[in-house]
Order: sequence, then structure tokens, then C-alpha cells
Amino acid sequence: MTMHDTSDDSVDQIIDRAVRASEQWKRAGIDERSRALVAVADALDQHADELIPIAQRETHLAEPRLRGELRRTSFQLRMFAEMLPEGLWLDARIDHADAEWPMGAPRPDLRRQLEPIGATLVFAASNFPFAFSVAGGDTASALAAGNAVVLKAHHGHPELSDATAAVVIDALASAGAPEGLFQTIHGTEAGVRALRASGIKAAAFTGSVRGGRALFDIASSRPEPIPFYGELGSTNPAFVTRRAAERDAAGIARDFVASVTGSAGQLCTKPGVLFVPAGSSIVAELEGQRLPAASALLNGGIESGFRDSLASTRGVAGVRTLSAGARSEADADADAGAPSPVLLETSIATLRDEMHTLMSEMFGPAALVVTYDDENELLDIADSLEGQLTATIIGEDDDEIAVDLLPKLSERAGRVLWNQWPTGVSVTWAQQHGGPYPATTAVGSTSVGMAAITRFLRPVAYQNVPESLLPDALKEANPLGIARRVDGILIQP
Amino acid sequence: MTMHDTSDDSVDQIIDRAVRASEQWKRAGIDERSRALVAVADALDQHADELIPIAQRETHLAEPRLRGELRRTSFQLRMFAEMLPEGLWLDARIDHADAEWPMGAPRPDLRRQLEPIGATLVFAASNFPFAFSVAGGDTASALAAGNAVVLKAHHGHPELSDATAAVVIDALASAGAPEGLFQTIHGTEAGVRALRASGIKAAAFTGSVRGGRALFDIASSRPEPIPFYGELGSTNPAFVTRRAAERDAAGIARDFVASVTGSAGQLCTKPGVLFVPAGSSIVAELEGQRLPAASALLNGGIESGFRDSLASTRGVAGVRTLSAGARSEADADADAGAPSPVLLETSIATLRDEMHTLMSEMFGPAALVVTYDDENELLDIADSLEGQLTATIIGEDDDEIAVDLLPKLSERAGRVLWNQWPTGVSVTWAQQHGGPYPATTAVGSTSVGMAAITRFLRPVAYQNVPESLLPDALKEANPLGIARRVDGILIQP
Repeated sequence: MTMHDTSDDSVDQIIDRAVRASEQWKRAGIDERSRALVAVADALDQHADELIPIAQRETHLAEPRLRGELRRTSFQLRMFAEMLPEGLWLDARIDHADAEWPMGAPRPDLRRQLEPIGATLVFAASNFPFAFSVAGGDTASALAAGNAVVLKAHHGHPELSDATAAVVIDALASAGAPEGLFQTIHGTEAGVRALRASGIKAAAFTGSVRGGRALFDIASSRPEPIPFYGELGSTNPAFVTRRAAERDAAGIARDFVASVTGSAGQLCTKPGVLFVPAGSSIVAELEGQRLPAASALLNGGIESGFRDSLASTRGVAGVRTLSAGARSEADADADAGAPSPVLLETSIATLRDEMHTLMSEMFGPAALVVTYDDENELLDIADSLEGQLTATIIGEDDDEIAVDLLPKLSERAGRVLWNQWPTGVSVTWAQQHGGPYPATTAVGSTSVGMAAITRFLRPVAYQNVPESLLPDALKEANPLGIARRVDGILIQP
Repeated sequence: MTMHDTSDDSVDQIIDRAVRASEQWKRAGIDERSRALVAVADALDQHADELIPIAQRETHLAEPRLRGELRRTSFQLRMFAEMLPEGLWLDARIDHADAEWPMGAPRPDLRRQLEPIGATLVFAASNFPFAFSVAGGDTASALAAGNAVVLKAHHGHPELSDATAAVVIDALASAGAPEGLFQTIHGTEAGVRALRASGIKAAAFTGSVRGGRALFDIASSRPEPIPFYGELGSTNPAFVTRRAAERDAAGIARDFVASVTGSAGQLCTKPGVLFVPAGSSIVAELEGQRLPAASALLNGGIESGFRDSLASTRGVAGVRTLSAGARSEADADADAGAPSPVLLETSIATLRDEMHTLMSEMFGPAALVVTYDDENELLDIADSLEGQLTATIIGEDDDEIAVDLLPKLSERAGRVLWNQWPTGVSVTWAQQHGGPYPATTAVGSTSVGMAAITRFLRPVAYQNVPESLLPDALKEANPLGIARRVDGILIQP
């Protein structure tokens, strides 16, 4: 199916509507926002049987995976809806006037909360056609924060995007949300035009380093630069200690392969590089693993990108193929048919010489196994890592190396795991899906979990403003019944 | 006095030391950080009599103002020190494993906190030689967050910068802080080189739109872009309602002049444009005000910039001089001697025609009074404002216009004031000193108040990590005794 790209005029009208809808939505009560999010969640669940087949056809992802993803998507909307009334996310602070304030000058009455940032542009991802697309986490958190959303649909699933958008728009209308609160646009040029529009006050993106960096550069070079929350690329290294390798080589090999090949490796947290002790039977276990058969990737662009990155990794002298999926290695290289899962292997010496190439993300069903001689070598690797979404240690609780390795990894990654694998990013209060560049363009943010709402908020302080004119969250009487920091002390209702 | 700029080699060595110091400081206990901040505060107070005269000589600011500013500076360090042990700023979250998590997949054990962002570069401001310079708010909050600081000294007060830095460095050393935790560099090229260095992970700046934007562009175009917290420029409009003008024209005129001319108008929150009802006696009151005598500005660059911006405002047809300070108007225009305070006046029609010129910041002792006919005109002005640090309403509590005007101003400014003037930015829990561009380059942040620490932190989640390897703030036993969000519920110790 081919979609017509959104015209310049339409983009401009869509943004005008989004700006007006943002102004209205900002004034909506928190309960109203919650109800609208729940309405969207319910509608998505109700339309599952209509949406899932379109998603299967357009993305080649398996039905169980897509059903799980849709469930995650509606769950996420409901979790934001439940969080809103509690109000801790508003970070409300009240300082009463204090003539004796020890700064040397009287303290005025100051009250501060987080408020909606304004109309938000969301670029949908290809690999999660529900959870990081039309009604995904970026949309959910931007709406929850009180902003209108303009959604740039991903060209990989245009029909699903329109069908999902129709469900979202209907649900929002039935919940009484303002017209134009959620709208979609199609086409790269439309996305860029929207990103440059003065009415857009923040943008979110999940995708490649190249595409994300180009958009970040546009957002940053606007006359009025805006925050650009891009989740770009990550290799997600995993480090197996010597003792862990001795204890359970077979289990580690099995779970690693499952994490690498799930969703045909098209997950941003796929563990792309596994460090194992030289001589460990993990290598033999991986050689003996029966990898899944080849399966079609999301779209032609993903497939050719995968083949290219696989070819550059394989092009490094000292990299050998450890095992491959059902199709032959020659087929996997050929520019035709679905690519086969592949595990490659090399030594830590080769990795050090070709760090940039070998630590680059291969987005698809492939990973590199790196053998090390001395656990202390892992500390040097950790020091030279680029920013990562995740870093994993498979170890024993009293492994000495972990005491040094774990803090080093925490400086390079947004999430550090112990004896679990990084794929399957749970939506929770404490989740962190982010990290230093190139994992993201905004190291202080997360795109999954409840803290994701903060991306679409900005602080405003009110000085000496009378009770009747204050926002509800800051009124002395606390009509919202929320926790607030009053004169420095956190007061719970 | 002329300072030698820091050489390229020295900049590189300084950054290497800062990176190492950041790694050590990150591991320091919170109590250790607190003690070091207090040690710096005490040392600054003890050296006041040595530092103040240097500041007077280099900045031409008056002694009482400088003594007050130094007190504010040490107060701020102590306030961060007191905040640290309480730990709410860590935003610690703990989600226990939950096999029944309704997302559709078991929830792993996830724990998240904010951690130091890494070595931080601070560009000192000219107009607050203590509070926004060497040991000012950016330095205090970056150190409190657990980072090393490289301070690019302002060329307007080089001797004071070195003298203050010596006090800071001695105090940190005596408190046992790592070597290289705080270092200074001099010169524009050294600042740019440091900003480009891969070891620097965040930067803060207070200064002009032009300078700040150039540095923001450098920070954003690095191979690894970093957050750049720039506080640039603001006109800080103030709106007097008709009834307020009727009630107290004399008081409004007096307080406005005091706010405009304090510190010779060299404050980023100076109310640069005052809207008053046409025919109000405020205009006559302002004409009759005795403005302070001319006084030297901070330095030659500030002075010529002020003359230029004043000349462009005066160059607009329909702008007239309402009153001027002790020197003649001709003198004030001339490119010699200290500039005299000046109040200009125009109509709202002229303002609308020349919005960009007339709403540009004049950094120095000048302001523009704009007469309006209908209060509803103020709503249109509010809609067309660029981002501001502050916006002020002088009104009566039951003024109808305030109900619409105040929320509009909250969309354009970081702080909205009611019947108070924006200069004199108190350091408190709820303070917000920020705003949409060009007020700042990072709309989600503040550079004054306790929330300023968040700029220099980044979130990290730990999944399934054993108690012994977890950071203290996330250990099940809560050894720090801090408030945490546990399974979604805020638990206070």
C-alpha cells in the first residue's frame, strides 16, 4: 500500500489545530485527562482483532508478539491514567513568604509546578507498531502531560497507523477531548516541516542513529530550539564472568540466543555483543545451538541495513561465524530472501583494534561473541564503551570483578542488569529506557516507564499570586490532595 | 589587569583531571559532599574582606550589593549541602519483582535513581561576580550533584575569579575532596575547546543571547551532543491593570524605577517593558521620577551593547524619552562616560509594529513604558511574547483580565509574579529561573533554586542487581534513610 504524503498546507493546518488543542487540553482537569487515556486504552483493546492482522501483514511480526505488544500499549495508557491523580509527577513546591529567610533578603511566596510543554511531535518507530508507534509510550506520556500530539506515522506500517489513529481519535472524541488533540501526518518531508514549525514545542523519536541525529540537528538549529528526545542505537553489551560461565554455560547460551533472536533481533535492547571467557564451553554451546529459521524483517530498509552492518562486521579479519540459522551462510549474505540468524565470534584483541565497527549496532538477528582472557580486560572495555541503553552482567553475587565493573557500566548505560537479559522492557515506575548518546539524544530522560512524562513538562513558578488565580496543584487548600514540598518538607495528603 | 588565556595543552590536562575527579567524587558519600560544600561556603565568608574590594574594582558594583551577593552565594552552597542528605533529589524508585504484573509479562526487580552526569563546564556570568560566577549556583549545583567542575572565568573580573577560585580550591582540599574537582580556565578559545572535549558531559552558561546561542550550537553539534543549560536573555514584561493603576500610580512608578535601575539595570530579570493604561497618572509619575545618576556599567562590552540596544529602541518612530538620569540625554547617547538611566515611552500600536526591536533586551539602566487603551490588548501581546524568565502582573485580586492573562503568561515565562517586581531572585525550594527560548536553551530546567541540581544528574536503573552491589539509595535496607517510591507508593523514612 502506498500512502500519500501529507501536504505542506495540511501540515500547517494540523499544527495550528494542535496548538489550539494543547491550550484547551492544558486547562482540562486531571480527571478528564485520565478518562481520555483510559478511553483510548479500552478502544485499542476492543479493536485488537481488527488491528492485529494489519500489523502482521505490514510488519511480518508474529501474532503472539503483536497481541502482547498491544496489551502493553493499552496497559501503559492506563498506568499513566492511574498516575495522574496522585500528582507527584507535578513536583509541586510551595515556599511561604519568610521575612527572616537567611539568604539576606525576605523570601517571597513562591510556588512551582510542572506544566505541559506544548504541542508535541512524535516520530513513530518501525519495530513496535503499537508500543512505540501511534498510541505508544511517547504519545501516552505527551497526552498525559497535557499536550496535543502530532504523530508522524512510520512508512513501514501506514495502514495500521491510520487504523490505529482512527481508533484513538474516536476514543478521544467520545471522551470529550478537544478536536485536534491527536493527529497524524505521513512522509519524511511532512515530518521535517512539522519539526521546524514554531508551534511544536518538543519532539520524540525512536529509530536509527543516522535518522535520529538528522532530526536532532534540525530541532537544535531552529530559531527556537526545542527538546528532542531521540532513542537511537545501542549495542547492549553483556559480560559473562568466568565463574558464571563455569556454572551454567548451557543456560547462558540458550537464554542469550533467545534474547538475540526474539522478534528477529529487531529490538533496541537486543544484546548485540556477548563477552565470554576464552575456552569457556559457552562457545561450544553456541556453536551447537539450533538457531531459529530465517524470517522476514520489518521492511526492505531494515533488511538492507541489517545486511550491510552484518557484512561490515564479517569483513573484519579475525571475525568468524559461530552458527547460523536454517538457511546457509551464503544465503544469509545474499541480497535476497529473509536473512538468517547469525552468531559471530572474535577475540577481545580484535575487538579493541576494530572497536567502532564491531561495537556498531546490527539491527536484526545477529550478535557477536567476544572471548576474553582476563576479567580485568572487561574494565577497559567498559571504559571505552559509547552510550548504551543497557549493559548486562551475568555473574555470581560474590564475583570480585562486579564491584568495579557494575559502576563503570552505570556510567555508560541507562539500565544495568544482573543475570537477566535486556530485551523485554517492562513498563513500571522505576524503568529507565535511555542512556548517553548515541543511545539517546537526551541523557536525562526515559522513553519507557512513568518518568517518561517529565519529558513533556516544564517548570513554572508563581510568585505572590493570590489563591484564586493559582493553579489547583499550588493552592494553599490543596484541592487536588497531592503530595507537595512545602517550605522544603515533603507533605503527603 | 590582563590574564593569560589557558593554553590548549592546559585545557586538555584540566579536563583529564576533571574526569578523574568526577569518578572519585561520584563515589564519595553524600555527607562528604555536604561537608565540602559547607567548607567552601565558610571559606568564602571568611575571605569576604579580601574578595569584595577586588569585585568592586573589577565590576563597578556597589559594596552593599556585592556583600549581599556573596552572602547569597555562601547561603546557596549551604542550602544544597543541607538538601543532599534528605535525598528526595535522587528520585529513588524501587519496583519489586511481580510475577502478576498486568502488563502481560512478569515485572523484574527494577530500581532507579539519578546519578552524576559527569564533568561539567560552567561559563561564568559578568553581572553576578559571585552568585553566577566562580562559586555560584551552577558550580554549587554541579558539585552537589556529584560532578567535577571546570569553570570558564568571565573576562570582566579575572582577578576576582582567580582569588575566588583559590579560596574554593583550598576549601575543597581541606575538606578532603579529590584533586581537580574544581578548576578554572581563562579565554574564549579555551572555553570553546573545553566545550568540545569528550570528557565534558554538560555545560551551563549565563549571558547574552548571541554568545549563549553560539555555545549551545557547539554543544549540540558535538559528535556526542551534551545538555547545554544557557540562561540567555529576557525582557521581563510587566502589565499594570487599569484598576491597579488607578489605586497606586505613585507607588507603582517608584517601585518600577527601583527595579529597573538597581545594579544599574544589569539584571537578567529587570522589567524591561511596562504596560500601563493610556492616560494613567503613572506616566506623569514616571516623568517626575528622579532617576539615579549615571554609573559605570560592568565593562566596556556591556556598555557598548547597552548603548546600541538603547539606540535601536530610540530609533523607532513613536518612541519618546520619558525621563533620564542626572546626565543629559545627549550625554547618554554619546559614546563616552557612564550611561545615564533612561525611561522611554511608546504606544501599544507602535510596539505591535516593531515588536522584535522594542521587545529586545536593553541590558542596562533603561526600560520602555507602553500605553494601552484596552486591557484585552494585553492578551494579544501575551500571545506574541517570546520566551521570558519572568512576566509580572500588577493588578487587583478580582481583576477580570487576570483570569486570562495569567495563564497566558505562564506559557511564555518561567516565573509569573503578582504585585511584586521580578528583580531579586530568591534562592528557595520552589524558585524557577528559566523559561522558553531565548530566556534559556533548556526549557525544562532552572539555574536558581534547589531544582537546579537536576540539570547535572541522569537516571540509571538497576535490574535484578543483588543488594550488595546496589547503590546505597536503592538498597532494600535504605541505609540512607531517604524517601523513595516503592512499587509506586512514596514511602517516607
